[in-house]
Amino acid sequence: MVTAISPLAPQNVPDMPRIAGIRLATAAAGIRYQNRTDVLLALFDKGTSVAGVFTKSKCPSAAVDWCRARLKGGEARALVVNSGNANAFTGKIGRQATALTAAIAAKAIESNPGKIFLASTGVIGEPLDATKFDGVLDELAKNATPDGWHNAARAIMTTDTFAKVATATVKLGKTKVRINGIAKGAGMIAPDMATLLAFVFTDAPISSGVLQTLLKSGVNDTFNAVTIDGDTSTSDTLMAFATGAAAAKGAPVIKRANDPHLKAFAAAFHGILADLAEQVARDGEGARKLVEVVVEGAHSDKSARKVAMSIANSPLVKTAVAGEDANWGRVVMAVGKAGEPANRDKLAISFNGIRVASRGARDPAYNEEQVSATMKQPKIQIKVAMGIGKGRDRVLTCDLTKEYVAINGDYRS
Amino acid sequence: MVTAISPLAPQNVPDMPRIAGIRLATAAAGIRYQNRTDVLLALFDKGTSVAGVFTKSKCPSAAVDWCRARLKGGEARALVVNSGNANAFTGKIGRQATALTAAIAAKAIESNPGKIFLASTGVIGEPLDATKFDGVLDELAKNATPDGWHNAARAIMTTDTFAKVATATVKLGKTKVRINGIAKGAGMIAPDMATLLAFVFTDAPISSGVLQTLLKSGVNDTFNAVTIDGDTSTSDTLMAFATGAAAAKGAPVIKRANDPHLKAFAAAFHGILADLAEQVARDGEGARKLVEVVVEGAHSDKSARKVAMSIANSPLVKTAVAGEDANWGRVVMAVGKAGEPANRDKLAISFNGIRVASRGARDPAYNEEQVSATMKQPKIQIKVAMGIGKGRDRVLTCDLTKEYVAINGDYRS
Repeated sequence: MVTAISPLAPQNVPDMPRIAGIRLATAAAGIRYQNRTDVLLALFDKGTSVAGVFTKSKCPSAAVDWCRARLKGGEARALVVNSGNANAFTGKIGRQATALTAAIAAKAIESNPGKIFLASTGVIGEPLDATKFDGVLDELAKNATPDGWHNAARAIMTTDTFAKVATATVKLGKTKVRINGIAKGAGMIAPDMATLLAFVFTDAPISSGVLQTLLKSGVNDTFNAVTIDGDTSTSDTLMAFATGAAAAKGAPVIKRANDPHLKAFAAAFHGILADLAEQVARDGEGARKLVEVVVEGAHSDKSARKVAMSIANSPLVKTAVAGEDANWGRVVMAVGKAGEPANRDKLAISFNGIRVASRGARDPAYNEEQVSATMKQPKIQIKVAMGIGKGRDRVLTCDLTKEYVAINGDYRS
Repeated sequence: MVTAISPLAPQNVPDMPRIAGIRLATAAAGIRYQNRTDVLLALFDKGTSVAGVFTKSKCPSAAVDWCRARLKGGEARALVVNSGNANAFTGKIGRQATALTAAIAAKAIESNPGKIFLASTGVIGEPLDATKFDGVLDELAKNATPDGWHNAARAIMTTDTFAKVATATVKLGKTKVRINGIAKGAGMIAPDMATLLAFVFTDAPISSGVLQTLLKSGVNDTFNAVTIDGDTSTSDTLMAFATGAAAAKGAPVIKRANDPHLKAFAAAFHGILADLAEQVARDGEGARKLVEVVVEGAHSDKSARKVAMSIANSPLVKTAVAGEDANWGRVVMAVGKAGEPANRDKLAISFNGIRVASRGARDPAYNEEQVSATMKQPKIQIKVAMGIGKGRDRVLTCDLTKEYVAINGDYRS
């Protein structure tokens, strides 16, 4: 198991402020890992609204099924996340485990299981012994404090090499509100929903309906635009919780997505999603390079997304980047196999702004030394100008290294 | 560069018989490699019919464009194949190179460039210097002999670790005819056409139209059912050449695909395609395990193909196999992400016939030792019973190892 921190980890980790109405606690329940925390309990004051988007997998985890069914209520009192076991493909026992976990949490905080939200991440197919939460959640509920955001992010990690946090302060009306986010996810990351666990918290008074709109519109160019290996987890979960505590300080209550007060908040909220999504790419299993794929001049934005994903998921492109080789031939291959409208003789390809190919052939100004030098950078932008339309898109990925194989060849054993 | 022969290479390599009407020669033209042959010239007697299927890439190579345009003529006098340079994404220079190569070959054999077929494999984006064929093809035409099939297969290799040949003898009417095949391809292999270079040759008198029908119907469950890395080459080419020489020995001339004489021949022809396709999977870059994915009980055959490909292309499944880990959770993940109709609670999954999961959970009879032992085998069959319909499909792939990354991270440099 590779445990060194990704060389692409953010240099500056923000201090995470308190958010009125939220308390946190973590514990080592021994779900799977030794000597580390593996359970997070987040407690919310009454009136906290909730929204979520989940994996598009046809075989979702028991926790995903649980949350989907409880979102209608629109209110959350607690979030329980465990790492080490995904409680996925665990059948009836898995469903029983979610019900038992929610019941234990509800009892601990004297609430209703329908207001308890759950997420599990880790190995698939192993029964999750929810009785391990008995006692643990009681203790956590007693000890929960407004601090400990970094610990919270740490408790939900699996093969992540660093904890992922982001924070923003923005005005809602004339009142400052805060947005904190935490995320985990390093492999089994691909679009078609969130592709990881990510949770966003705010004290802004935002209805669950508006929160849902913000998630749905925000996920497309953030979490859904990140791919590590093209594999989509059964457990992908992105949830948002709004305590509304800032209303007491004068923040307007937002019940409509077109409320003009929402604009700055929505931008900040989107920024948190983008920040966390990039951190996920930066912690791709075995990643040594952050790769940004930009496709422009495509037939449509949707077409640009397909081409960008074809490039970003190509093992041959990703291994070339790992080898610091500006192998534009493989980029052409990936454009070609995407099946989208393309004209070879109009394609132009650049690496970090250096054009290597244009009009269906190697660029006349191609300079091997210059290109080789730029490929040594930790961030590589591959830009493809299709030259046939106005469609544009951008996705993030990472290189494919021997470490990815090592991590995933040994994971379960 | 890893050069050891794949441990999955066939144990028994057949002797390759002569085929009346065909002569072969190979040379070291120094296209890219040192100290090895890199050009194959196959010469056909007059009246040889030809058919071909090609990559579905939107950015096909110049050689693919050349062949597609010349297939209408229906007749072939020569095939020129070079390895080391794919002549793809080479623009106008690439088109000139194909025209020049065909002109040189046509002059050498006193034929017409429209009857010369070309294939190139190797690096994309580098101009191919076709003047290197000048003199070389003359020499080859002079020295061509009816033998040398193994040398022919060897001359078209790139990262292949063994030459791929197959042969069959079958009766057409009352006359024995022969079918020989050669292929190359170890990476950049995925369906949506042939995904490699493969050439099939026969002395049977088969019209180009019938030959085309045999290729189109034969490719779906052979070459199109093989995936190494989900990447599709710009140069994929599968061509068939029928000299018709067996007509002189009494073989009936076949001009209609429903000719009853064709049945046994069609089966043998299909067998050659299947044999070569499996050899490609066995030589997957870095492969240590041959993986057969069988999906049954799916909504439809088409749906079964999509699910099988989702499993076969999943990096997480492939690394698990490399780690000898029967990680059925990742198989569930890959079923789920395929987007096809699936019911988690009806799924059953087995490895080499040992059922590990059923009805949405771990199989009660699961025996870790037994499963671990079978994962050490060189061939792993992953079978998924979807339990919802009658759709069935089978695809071949291989595991994903550190050697794949090493091979593809260093290839161009």
